[in-house]
Amino acid sequence: MKIASLEPLREGDFALNGGRAFALESGVELATASLHYAIYGTLNEQRDNAILVCHALTGSARVADWWPDLFRDGHPLDLKTHCVIGINILGSCYGSTGPSSIDPWTGRSYGADFPVVSIRDIVRAQAELIESLGITQLRAVLGGSIGGMQALQWAIDYPERVAGCFAVGAAPLPAMGLALNHLQRDAIRLDPAWKGGDYAASEPPKRGLALARGIATCSYKSPALFDERFARKPDRAGGDPRTDAESKYDVAGYLEYQGRIFTDRFDANSYLTITRAMDNFDLAHGYVSEKIALERIQARVLLAGISSDWLFPPEDVRGLAEKIQDAGAVCNYIEIHSTHGHDAFLAEAANVRPLIEYIVRSGAPTPAVRSERAAVLA
Amino acid sequence: MKIASLEPLREGDFALNGGRAFALESGVELATASLHYAIYGTLNEQRDNAILVCHALTGSARVADWWPDLFRDGHPLDLKTHCVIGINILGSCYGSTGPSSIDPWTGRSYGADFPVVSIRDIVRAQAELIESLGITQLRAVLGGSIGGMQALQWAIDYPERVAGCFAVGAAPLPAMGLALNHLQRDAIRLDPAWKGGDYAASEPPKRGLALARGIATCSYKSPALFDERFARKPDRAGGDPRTDAESKYDVAGYLEYQGRIFTDRFDANSYLTITRAMDNFDLAHGYVSEKIALERIQARVLLAGISSDWLFPPEDVRGLAEKIQDAGAVCNYIEIHSTHGHDAFLAEAANVRPLIEYIVRSGAPTPAVRSERAAVLA
Repeated sequence: MKIASLEPLREGDFALNGGRAFALESGVELATASLHYAIYGTLNEQRDNAILVCHALTGSARVADWWPDLFRDGHPLDLKTHCVIGINILGSCYGSTGPSSIDPWTGRSYGADFPVVSIRDIVRAQAELIESLGITQLRAVLGGSIGGMQALQWAIDYPERVAGCFAVGAAPLPAMGLALNHLQRDAIRLDPAWKGGDYAASEPPKRGLALARGIATCSYKSPALFDERFARKPDRAGGDPRTDAESKYDVAGYLEYQGRIFTDRFDANSYLTITRAMDNFDLAHGYVSEKIALERIQARVLLAGISSDWLFPPEDVRGLAEKIQDAGAVCNYIEIHSTHGHDAFLAEAANVRPLIEYIVRSGAPTPAVRSERAAVLA
Repeated sequence: MKIASLEPLREGDFALNGGRAFALESGVELATASLHYAIYGTLNEQRDNAILVCHALTGSARVADWWPDLFRDGHPLDLKTHCVIGINILGSCYGSTGPSSIDPWTGRSYGADFPVVSIRDIVRAQAELIESLGITQLRAVLGGSIGGMQALQWAIDYPERVAGCFAVGAAPLPAMGLALNHLQRDAIRLDPAWKGGDYAASEPPKRGLALARGIATCSYKSPALFDERFARKPDRAGGDPRTDAESKYDVAGYLEYQGRIFTDRFDANSYLTITRAMDNFDLAHGYVSEKIALERIQARVLLAGISSDWLFPPEDVRGLAEKIQDAGAVCNYIEIHSTHGHDAFLAEAANVRPLIEYIVRSGAPTPAVRSERAAVLA
């Protein structure tokens, strides 16, 4: 699926706070922190054609690597007119400061000592980078899952700097999601190779991370999709689970494969850090109330729920859209019909493209529209 | 919830095959095998008032301990008229032969060498015990989840010996269920204390088993129930997950508690064995086709799906009921509306009681009814 040829025009690292300590919401400081970024297309002279694409749990700054459909024929993100920016989030293992980075205060990698990072921290760091590029307003901020959480946080924390906000499959995580993330972290910690987070890069806790990925994969897909793909077929590699305890079903072979390829590309401590940020995403965070947070929004917002998403149920996304509307912002909700579950925003990106096109083309609501809405609500 | 005072009238152990080797479907033999059973109420002279209640994954022969509501006021299982029998399944750790039993051929407990056991094996062993009691026909066989699988298998394998069959939240496991069971077994095997299945009884793999139970608990409950009970509340024991990586949410504390109490009462190798039996349940098993298996049924069958059950979705249970009807058997389907998920058959047993009452009271369909149905289908 990847378009191997679409390389960013520019890729690099940005030192936060001029290379000095970066303070996190928790009160803890990172001695230094940097963000890895990738830029596709060219920023125009007015610097008003930038689109920030926020990645989900295991993504990277290289947007075209994990969401290639956004740049395909009939794409909403035409690089002749738009400049697309991807930024690896704090806590990740794709170039930005995270648990596998060296802590300059100890000379060793942070490991499990890497502090709790919030979606607000992640977004504040991104805002610093965006400011350094001379961009006063982003044409749009987009994302799915944790990427969508970031897009929403951008619209709340930097209202003047976001014209359009699109989030798919994102809302504060419900109790089932909190439960599944907890179990995934438990799986990593159960692996003796995790060593309290102090493993060497060459000896990571692969089995625990693969199990975490397996649990996550079940939550990203839908029961209907699994039935369609795997049903009760035995493992394609052979063996009969009805007589042999070592044999398995096809779906188990699939999960094992997904776990294996994942552990080759992702760091277990980053997984712990980012799932915590996901857990803690909460619209009221840093404000007196959720309503006061949402009232700050000036961007045009579009939220999309996915019909078969049971990690971020569409009802929750719709409920969030209603809250945003009630707070006076211009917000629409749409439901994507798919059997793919949460993953549909990546697996069936064609459904998402017109939505992105809408938000990118529409721009921010005019002050007239906003005051009209305020009058209706008053 | 337990009625501590309701003790079985008789509790004991039954040696299968007169104490000689017991052959399993897989071709493997257990040198000796026995079943632990509990009998509530008295068998009448005609021996036609016996009801077999089959337990689920972690249950026991002591039905009143885990399904006490069946014996409450307004109960369907009146012990003045009925004799209720519970039998611990092969592979379990509540008294019947299982992985923690001593293998007489080695003098050590089977551990991970305990053979693959099928639902058919479990039922065949039960049938031997029931025969030894002089019961030629059971008034009803009942069960939820794996207990329901056993009830269905009884109706297929011993058609003349079952008058009524009631199964709730049971059908061949769909792909999502196979996936989740696989991950649960992986969790146990990941625990270094599992030691390839060769752990001492005093040093069981508690963390792995607790993680498995956590995954299972998510699958037994519904997202709506978790939201209602836990929402995004922090752990009741204190701590703020937004600043402290060691702190957790309430739902995580609940899962940890469930894991802890479970590991005090259940054996990890039994868990592996029984989840495999659950995986492998398949109506065609042992017959030329599923249709031929289902055509054998002579009992009155009632299947119940639970609206919020995502482990055994109600559509699957209804689909199974339709297949049984199409095979000429007298079968009804009913959907229980509950937010409790799969667990509703235990958590809201009041919903299940009238269904059991119906199946126990109705008895087997008369030959006239059966041939009428056959005529309609012909």
